[in-house]
Amino acid sequence: MRIYVAEELSNSFSTSDRKYLKSKAKGYDLFFSKIDKFSRKFSESKIVFGNIPPAMIEKSSKLEWVQLESAGFAEYMTIGGMNQKIVITNLKGFFAKQVAQTALASILAIYRGIIDTENLKNKKKWIGDPIRNSLSILENKKVVLIGTGSINKIFKKYIQPFDCEIESFNTHSKDKDLINHLKKAELVISALPGTKKTKNFFNKNKLSALNKKCIFVNVGRGNSVNEKHLIQILKTNKIRGAALDVTEDEPLKKNSALWSLKNVILTQHTGGGSESETIDKIDFFLNNLKKFKINRSNLINKVNLSKGY
Amino acid sequence: MRIYVAEELSNSFSTSDRKYLKSKAKGYDLFFSKIDKFSRKFSESKIVFGNIPPAMIEKSSKLEWVQLESAGFAEYMTIGGMNQKIVITNLKGFFAKQVAQTALASILAIYRGIIDTENLKNKKKWIGDPIRNSLSILENKKVVLIGTGSINKIFKKYIQPFDCEIESFNTHSKDKDLINHLKKAELVISALPGTKKTKNFFNKNKLSALNKKCIFVNVGRGNSVNEKHLIQILKTNKIRGAALDVTEDEPLKKNSALWSLKNVILTQHTGGGSESETIDKIDFFLNNLKKFKINRSNLINKVNLSKGY
Repeated sequence: MRIYVAEELSNSFSTSDRKYLKSKAKGYDLFFSKIDKFSRKFSESKIVFGNIPPAMIEKSSKLEWVQLESAGFAEYMTIGGMNQKIVITNLKGFFAKQVAQTALASILAIYRGIIDTENLKNKKKWIGDPIRNSLSILENKKVVLIGTGSINKIFKKYIQPFDCEIESFNTHSKDKDLINHLKKAELVISALPGTKKTKNFFNKNKLSALNKKCIFVNVGRGNSVNEKHLIQILKTNKIRGAALDVTEDEPLKKNSALWSLKNVILTQHTGGGSESETIDKIDFFLNNLKKFKINRSNLINKVNLSKGY
Repeated sequence: MRIYVAEELSNSFSTSDRKYLKSKAKGYDLFFSKIDKFSRKFSESKIVFGNIPPAMIEKSSKLEWVQLESAGFAEYMTIGGMNQKIVITNLKGFFAKQVAQTALASILAIYRGIIDTENLKNKKKWIGDPIRNSLSILENKKVVLIGTGSINKIFKKYIQPFDCEIESFNTHSKDKDLINHLKKAELVISALPGTKKTKNFFNKNKLSALNKKCIFVNVGRGNSVNEKHLIQILKTNKIRGAALDVTEDEPLKKNSALWSLKNVILTQHTGGGSESETIDKIDFFLNNLKKFKINRSNLINKVNLSKGY
């Protein structure tokens, strides 16, 4: 049985990663490839591991299962009705710990002055004591979590020792209720997926509700935020700061005001990363491959293309 | 009863802080002063709030109680035998949460690439995906805590959700046992106070035991570490990095190699800081003042000048 491995999307598919996958998937005909729409090798593949372009999926005839190497699958939603016989599985939950830790790291970096002292270090400049009054601690904070999936579940566990007041919301929540909590929030963590419902979720109205002490953290999707208005409230210090793992454009455009705002952390969509990311992805795929072999219905993390999560 | 307030040592003794203290210490004769060794006002004071020079204490006759505004009191140990009738209280435990959060913030900043992406942001440079494999998560790590006081107690609580293997040591621990654990440690957090026993505690021998994955965090005292050797192992990447809230010299000298080492975080002895630091210190003093009024023996955080903690 042929497996088409769209290796170039995994940044770090090293020789040893490839060897590892081969050694664990004995009996399968593995074809590692750069994306190639018309390859015969692809057209003979039953299984794909990697994020191939949706158009390739639509044109395939033998394909039965695509294991994405991402949690997001917004770009595949168009194929929903077209090719019912193909099952797509994603890496839902796979990045949750990493992303939640990037959110926590960003918040603590702002609170404990890690960003400021790094910039002083670059100038070899000692300020010391006068910095102390600008610092905060994570304790008894009013926290609003947006998105009730795996990321915020783990984030909640991580901040448990800090005795915060935590309120959770998702796209089903009432705007009025949410806005009332946004007004008081000192930390807002958005981990919304990219769906029709989440687009522009943080509109001008919601962003304007945030207060001067608030740090806005987005580890979900960039298009869930009115970025222009977010920049406005950051520029005028209407909020304390933002930690953005995701932005509307990725890579962020050279002329984006976000680059030069002192109260912004930009983690460049690395939130899900870790040194074992590729091996962990391969292990996830191999585990699903075992389930596929028994019965395709056993696959875990099947995505619902009509719902978007 | 006169209280001499050595206000200049508190960086941020603002007009409102002063008003607050006055309003809460009615009935006392408060004298706010820059340090002045020969002031009559000082010689008539029974109480001091602030870190006045030890020589002032030695020369005083009426002084009964000094409330320090620090946890450390190494510089006062010389007066131990000389002036037994003066009680000195410190802020032991007062900074523990803040310092523990600076330690956690520093570790997560390294693990989640916050330092690296801040430096990329300064250059308006997007790297994105290729960063991901350089990141780590805080999970199942081998953690060695040195110092069994309030900082590491709270740090331990903070990292409880991350399922680490934690081993605790202090100056009474056997070197051989400690070194065996240092060899395997991925995180070493030192929160040792400044005493005779802790001076050069992290000697060449102990530092050489650390491994390539190890992050060395010092939130105790700078002179507990052989800094020259620490710089050596950081330069040659024998360890992953260091997060130093404290250094041998503070301010750190312009020519220190620490300024330019990429794998070092320098938080400039701000670990104990927070926006409410001064008010919290005043509240601590006021609470102790109430106890003093009843009976001097009721004072909390009396320091043992012969022991050093």
